[in-house]
Amino acid sequence: MSSEQIGKTHGFYIVVSAPSGTGKTSILREVIKKYPNMLFSVSYTTRPPRPGEKEGKDYCFISEEDFRERIFRGEFAEWVENYGYLYGTHALTMKKYLEEGYDLILDIEPRGAKKLKEYYSGGVFVFILPPSLGELKKRLSRRGFESERMVDKRMYKALDELGEFVWYDYIILNDKLDTAVNALSSIYVAEKCKRERLENKIRDLFL
Amino acid sequence: MSSEQIGKTHGFYIVVSAPSGTGKTSILREVIKKYPNMLFSVSYTTRPPRPGEKEGKDYCFISEEDFRERIFRGEFAEWVENYGYLYGTHALTMKKYLEEGYDLILDIEPRGAKKLKEYYSGGVFVFILPPSLGELKKRLSRRGFESERMVDKRMYKALDELGEFVWYDYIILNDKLDTAVNALSSIYVAEKCKRERLENKIRDLFL
Repeated sequence: MSSEQIGKTHGFYIVVSAPSGTGKTSILREVIKKYPNMLFSVSYTTRPPRPGEKEGKDYCFISEEDFRERIFRGEFAEWVENYGYLYGTHALTMKKYLEEGYDLILDIEPRGAKKLKEYYSGGVFVFILPPSLGELKKRLSRRGFESERMVDKRMYKALDELGEFVWYDYIILNDKLDTAVNALSSIYVAEKCKRERLENKIRDLFL
Repeated sequence: MSSEQIGKTHGFYIVVSAPSGTGKTSILREVIKKYPNMLFSVSYTTRPPRPGEKEGKDYCFISEEDFRERIFRGEFAEWVENYGYLYGTHALTMKKYLEEGYDLILDIEPRGAKKLKEYYSGGVFVFILPPSLGELKKRLSRRGFESERMVDKRMYKALDELGEFVWYDYIILNDKLDTAVNALSSIYVAEKCKRERLENKIRDLFL
C-alpha cells in the first residue's frame, strides 16, 4: 500500500490466535517486517523469559504481585491465566498507539481475544490453523524442549481451542509459511481498504 | 494462495465499479493474470465493438432485438442502459462458473452492481476511485478519442457515480497502478480467508 492508503488516521488492531505449534510466531514476524505502520503489541506476563526472549520486545516480564495490582487498577484490556502464568494487554498503551495512527497486531489466545472483541470495537480477528491434526502433533513433538506429557497437554489444549474458530473473521490454513504470510498481509491490506475505514477521507477528497 | 486455500469449492463473485478514467481496466487485467481460479465475467452489450475489442473476451456483442428478447426471457442477472446502449450479465453463465468453483470478477457500474447485491448473496463489492478530481479530469481528457463535450459528460457522470461508494464493501484509491493491483489482489485473497467461506472445509478437516 502507498502512504496515501496507509495514512496516519486512527489505527485498528488485528488479533491473531492459533493453537501452539501452528507456526504463528514466524508468520507474525514476517508480516510485521513488511509494514512500518504495523506494530506488535507487547503483552505483560508473569512467565519467566525463555532463552532468547527480550524484555519489552517479546513481553514485558513482571512479577505476579505487580500483575495483580495492575489487574486491580484496571490496566489490562484483557488478561488470562495460562499454565499458571498471567498474560495481559495494556489498555492505555494500545489506545495510545491506535490514536497515533499505528495499526497493532496482537498475539493472544481465544479467551483474551474474545474479551477484546466484546469491549473494543473495530478489531479484526484472525485464526491460524495447522493444515491437519497429524501435522500439528508432528510440529508440537519437534519443539524439542517439550516432554511427551507436555506435548499431549498442548495437543488437548489445541483441540479445545480449534473450536473457537467459529467467531473469528478470517481463517488461515498454515500449510506453507509464505502462503500464510501472504494471506495475513492480504487481510491487513484489504482491511485498510474497507469502506468504513476510508469514508471520512473520501468525503474530504471528493464531496 | 496455495491450491489448498483456493480450492474447487463454490466460488464467489467480485464486482468492481469505477467512474470511467479511473484506470479500472488495467487493474482488472493485471489481477486476473495472477489467479488461474479467477475468471472475468463477459457482459452482453448492444454497443458496437471498439477497435481491438474481441467478441466473447471483452463483450458478447449482440443486437438490440436479441438483447430485448433475452431481457424478456429473464436471462440477465442485471442489465442497464448506458448512453443509449444496453449492457447485461448473463445469469446462467455466472451461476455455472460459480458452481464449478471459479471466482468471477465483474466490471459493472453501480446501478447494475446494486441489482446484483440485492438478488445474489455472497458477492464482494469494490469501488475504485481516482486519487483526486483533478486527476480524473486529466485522465478523461487524455483518452484522445473523446470530444471535449464527451469529457464533460463523462465527468458529470463520474461525479454522480462517486456518491455510490457508500454501499460498497471496499474502496481502492488508484494513485499508482501496482498499489491498486496489490489492493485488489489482497481483497481477493482476504475474502478467500473469510471464516464463512471456509467453515465447511475446516469442519471436514478437524471436527
